Amino acid sequence: MEFPERITVVSHSIKLKARYSETDQGGVVHHSVYPVWFEMGRTELLRANGLAYKDLEGAGVFFVVAELNVKYRQAARYDEELELETWCSGVSASRIEHSYKLVRCGNDAVLAEGSSVLACLDGDGKVCRIPEFMYPSEETIV
Amino acid sequence: MEFPERITVVSHSIKLKARYSETDQGGVVHHSVYPVWFEMGRTELLRANGLAYKDLEGAGVFFVVAELNVKYRQAARYDEELELETWCSGVSASRIEHSYKLVRCGNDAVLAEGSSVLACLDGDGKVCRIPEFMYPSEETIV
Amino acid sequence: MEFPERITVVSHSIKLKARYSETDQGGVVHHSVYPVWFEMGRTELLRANGLAYKDLEGAGVFFVVAELNVKYRQAARYDEELELETWCSGVSASRIEHSYKLVRCGNDAVLAEGSSVLACLDGDGKVCRIPEFMYPSEETIV
Amino acid sequence: MEFPERITVVSHSIKLKARYSETDQGGVVHHSVYPVWFEMGRTELLRANGLAYKDLEGAGVFFVVAELNVKYRQAARYDEELELETWCSGVSASRIEHSYKLVRCGNDAVLAEGSSVLACLDGDGKVCRIPEFMYPSEETIV
Repeated sequence: MEFPERITVVSHSIKLKARYSETDQGGVVHHSVYPVWFEMGRTELLRANGLAYKDLEGAGVFFVVAELNVKYRQAARYDEELELETWCSGVSASRIEHSYKLVRCGNDAVLAEGSSVLACLDGDGKVCRIPEFMYPSEETIV
Repeated sequence: MEFPERITVVSHSIKLKARYSETDQGGVVHHSVYPVWFEMGRTELLRANGLAYKDLEGAGVFFVVAELNVKYRQAARYDEELELETWCSGVSASRIEHSYKLVRCGNDAVLAEGSSVLACLDGDGKVCRIPEFMYPSEETIV
Repeated sequence: MEFPERITVVSHSIKLKARYSETDQGGVVHHSVYPVWFEMGRTELLRANGLAYKDLEGAGVFFVVAELNVKYRQAARYDEELELETWCSGVSASRIEHSYKLVRCGNDAVLAEGSSVLACLDGDGKVCRIPEFMYPSEETIV
Repeated sequence: MEFPERITVVSHSIKLKARYSETDQGGVVHHSVYPVWFEMGRTELLRANGLAYKDLEGAGVFFVVAELNVKYRQAARYDEELELETWCSGVSASRIEHSYKLVRCGNDAVLAEGSSVLACLDGDGKVCRIPEFMYPSEETIV
């Protein structure tokens, strides 16, 4: 497969709507759902740069989550329209850091903020260099 | 790997306790959790017969769910102690049917009943005969 | 709140894309995810009729899943574009039956078919009559 | 209900076994499952101190996750026997910090480490003081 030449889109937003199954008996979205949404944000940020994550896996490049941090500010609720912004906040030889901001659509209340660090692995599960195109033109270091 | 000679345990019970994350805002366990519990029941029934499912996969024998039926009688609630009985209710050349009964420990209230049909696949995803040892001595046909 | 006068949309389709977290180590979407998707289909069918399920709950009308049946035909895979059709296939005094068909977008392969029966409960968890507007003009009986 | 007089057990370990549904197509446990396990760890630490979390909720005392941090060291795999240690690593007027260490049973490989901060809420969702008994005899401050 062919990789894009260079990452050009550094930030991307997606719309989300909390599912009933994602709530808990406290009446709000369970906190373990946010990492799932963050992953969706990363996937769409990558796609905005011309690449599907499944094609990366198909090419033998895997990313695994090495670190996750979430600050929960306000509860998200069932069927609410939410907007998740995902951006690349750091790149090193074998790691990519993303940051996240989750807001309620239509007002600017921040529901959650977070970050994650992905490690790049080859098909044997060994840490490897991230594909060249993923380095932003002006590199930031994690 | 070596398969057991013959399935001898046809029914097996496990204890379960509903997790907080498994509840929804209706205050009960979400209905999509029951198939997860049924799968745990099948795994432990197999283990009671001397075999781990991961060893089956390791030997290139895969089982996929082809059919699922659940009747929800009463809601299961957070942190309740539950007991799930799983038994093999039918076997054919390439399929196994299991049945399930979920009760609350300490009384005999039936919370749910169900059944599933698994199809046996080889490593290429082709339907294949189930391993010989899985035929009970007196065969029942799905 | 005000209910719509009458259900007029009896069938509705939504687009879905399987999330990475919804796959399992078999390389396909785990079978317990389909009931979650079916629930999303019901929610959007209701919304197409002018009503959000959360408003029903707000009005003290709850629907719980009493029965679920799924036939899995072909595996759904990560990041595939899927289309789920949901339609009301039966109504009785206190129950609604929905049917489901999940296909892969762009070809007509049927991945799964299913049905569910919802029971209508009031705020005390007692079975009650479903709201009048939910009866289709020509009633079918479950 | 009656609260225990004082928290005496500050650290507690539970055994876990990764479910098939908790894996993803990368062949390992999905990273969003760890927060669910951490929550189970907290629940059992509380129970070791003589209290069920559901009884706290019944008494109008709610804990919500305000912060979550996880470092993933090695992948957890399907059906592995794992041990999760949970301990209280800090207490303030309205917050409790827990720390976590997940190891594979039978060797000392650390699979993950993490921490979370819970905020104490009353029945109206207002931040409130944590119950008196939760203060360890020698207080540590978050």
